[in-house]
Amino acid sequence: MQHDAVEVITAKRDGHQLTDSQIDWVINAYTQGDVADEQMAALAMAILLNGMERSEISRWTAAMIASGERMDFSSLSRPTADKHSTGGVGDKITLPLAPLVAACGVAVPQLSGRGLGHTGGTLDKLESIPGWRADLSNAEMMRQLEEVGAVICAAGDGLAPADKKLYALRDVTGTVEAIPLIASSIMSKKIAEGTGALVLDVKVGTGAFMKTTERARELAEVMVALGTDAGVRTSALLTDMSIPLGFTAGNAIEVAESVEVLAGGGPADVVELTLALAREMLAGAGREDVDPADKLADGSAMDVWKAMIRAQDGDPDAPMATARESHVVTAPTGGVLSRLDAMAVGMAAWRLGAGRARKEDPVQDGAGVVWHARPGDTVSAGAPLFTLLTDEPDRFERALASLEGGFEISDSAVDTAPLVIDRIG
Amino acid sequence: MQHDAVEVITAKRDGHQLTDSQIDWVINAYTQGDVADEQMAALAMAILLNGMERSEISRWTAAMIASGERMDFSSLSRPTADKHSTGGVGDKITLPLAPLVAACGVAVPQLSGRGLGHTGGTLDKLESIPGWRADLSNAEMMRQLEEVGAVICAAGDGLAPADKKLYALRDVTGTVEAIPLIASSIMSKKIAEGTGALVLDVKVGTGAFMKTTERARELAEVMVALGTDAGVRTSALLTDMSIPLGFTAGNAIEVAESVEVLAGGGPADVVELTLALAREMLAGAGREDVDPADKLADGSAMDVWKAMIRAQDGDPDAPMATARESHVVTAPTGGVLSRLDAMAVGMAAWRLGAGRARKEDPVQDGAGVVWHARPGDTVSAGAPLFTLLTDEPDRFERALASLEGGFEISDSAVDTAPLVIDRIG
Repeated sequence: MQHDAVEVITAKRDGHQLTDSQIDWVINAYTQGDVADEQMAALAMAILLNGMERSEISRWTAAMIASGERMDFSSLSRPTADKHSTGGVGDKITLPLAPLVAACGVAVPQLSGRGLGHTGGTLDKLESIPGWRADLSNAEMMRQLEEVGAVICAAGDGLAPADKKLYALRDVTGTVEAIPLIASSIMSKKIAEGTGALVLDVKVGTGAFMKTTERARELAEVMVALGTDAGVRTSALLTDMSIPLGFTAGNAIEVAESVEVLAGGGPADVVELTLALAREMLAGAGREDVDPADKLADGSAMDVWKAMIRAQDGDPDAPMATARESHVVTAPTGGVLSRLDAMAVGMAAWRLGAGRARKEDPVQDGAGVVWHARPGDTVSAGAPLFTLLTDEPDRFERALASLEGGFEISDSAVDTAPLVIDRIG
Repeated sequence: MQHDAVEVITAKRDGHQLTDSQIDWVINAYTQGDVADEQMAALAMAILLNGMERSEISRWTAAMIASGERMDFSSLSRPTADKHSTGGVGDKITLPLAPLVAACGVAVPQLSGRGLGHTGGTLDKLESIPGWRADLSNAEMMRQLEEVGAVICAAGDGLAPADKKLYALRDVTGTVEAIPLIASSIMSKKIAEGTGALVLDVKVGTGAFMKTTERARELAEVMVALGTDAGVRTSALLTDMSIPLGFTAGNAIEVAESVEVLAGGGPADVVELTLALAREMLAGAGREDVDPADKLADGSAMDVWKAMIRAQDGDPDAPMATARESHVVTAPTGGVLSRLDAMAVGMAAWRLGAGRARKEDPVQDGAGVVWHARPGDTVSAGAPLFTLLTDEPDRFERALASLEGGFEISDSAVDTAPLVIDRIG
């Protein structure tokens, strides 16, 4: 059926539900260039302000999937499971998680992205490993999934091109923060990717995109419903992102922390979340019989990690990049660290060069922030609290400004929130 | 102060009042091309859905005026007054009104536009007069105002260029129907035009842009406040547009009907509205001592009309264009015409070639609709009810479809609504 852009925009503007035919038409026409950017921007704002019913979001997602290719892993000898995080500070979980789940017998096809703003990107972190490359052909990806069991690589241009175009538009038009558009953007790519099971790590807190549990829960529920409708076994964990994960935010330093986890050590919170997400993925793939903790303990997850890095031309044993300059922030008083703000830490890491402001910016492999205590830990006056790392010392000043007011030391012990807040699906 | 587009968009999206500095910046940056169309489209939709305070609309209007030149008629020997209509079917009022008010001693600088859709444009109507030209230089306009007292011509590109760009954008993005944007669009042009007094004819009803008295009143109040704030003596009449004006909708046929009014005759409703608006303009210009009815009766308004047409190279005595083809619709039954829908008639005239679908389309001088009865009139079965006029007979079918259901004949007399519903200001 033929529609026109103004008709579709005014329908949503006036609070009506879009028809399947209108949605299919507008996504296709936008992908083809027959609906202009200014028209899609007006529609996106109307969606943000007037919302969408579940059935509309489902159709919108399906139309974005139909705009491109759809991968198919049914020929693999193993079930598949994937994870998506809505983005957090120090969120390196994908790095230990993918090889861990593969070590449990489930293939992990992780199509990932680069970071923008204060949350890091998985590909940026992995690219700090000498030689490692993010771009694989579909054939290379399939071979690696069969032989190694895990692949983390860049999403090709063929998946959900409508989403790619729409995401860039939303970024410059103040229309990022619409749950229907966030949910359909994430889920169109994950469904097109062809995974059999999917776990969503929906972050909530100061360092996350969703600042409240209520909004995070709404997003998680919509995404779980979209995945389920599309035949993907989907669940979600709501996890805390008021405190950054682990003790590092950056690229090479997060890889090093991930390798610690794979070696059976690492920060307790990173281990906890990695295992929680692994159990969800294994349950989705029908392998709840395997305990992922065993695969960390017996070294098999580490073996998959090394094989996965080597398969993409990286050297897992090569020395990692280190920043040329460092600056230590010491505790002004002694006491208990009662608050460590994820957003403050994320902004500092970004300003030190670990992240980018624009898509085309480079990132520094060695830059980032190490914190030497987590909330609840006792600190002594004058002891190191943060180490700031960068290749460019003129970045310290703005990074220090980000950290100001981002932590508190108090006299008595504090209650910390649980890391996994809830499970949906 | 420096702003960025996403900041301004998200402020309005989240229901905040825009600051003066944000408004000045965004209008200037959009005019310069530093704010992209897709960004302005998102902002326009946020304004449409979240509204604007009076103070924001006032600043927005001022910023659009500041984007271009501002005319100044203070050197004229007479006061100035202008009229703006929000657009209706058969609305030829400007044609008799401008020379009538000039004949009363007040100069009328009417910068006008061409029509789009079912409401006709004043320039389109005048262009059906052989030789008449719409484009005048500012110097020609000033001279004609001094010598003849009235000028109706095309608005130059120099007035409120921000509005011109924004109007074209709103047209394709479903954001036309925002009262703050409608009011600031109209008033930025009228204030920049430099008139001393202004009367707004805000139409309400099926054939008008504003379908309800409530919405029309809101628009009128905002516009009167904007004009008053800018030092222009402004008032508004809310007038009925559920029934088309007079007995004709088209171009040459509306000129002929206007000339009848100037000759002392013409349809009662057209005469009534012309005189009501003339009295408002004269009051705004401080000349309430003059009775415009006298100037219709004594032929002086007709003299100004002829001089005004001649000054723009038109021949007021030349035979007018006539359509090559006509089709008569007769009354299916006898009775009283109880309803004549302005939108139905407007659509029929448009489809016959009197109006245009796209800016670049031509219009037919002779096309249009003549109705032979108005609501309240008695009609006999089989008597002519409509005459459809066009150069292209294949247009009759769609025009007839527009008229279907657009009129009713009943057994008994009907109450008709008053033409002037209310006065504001």
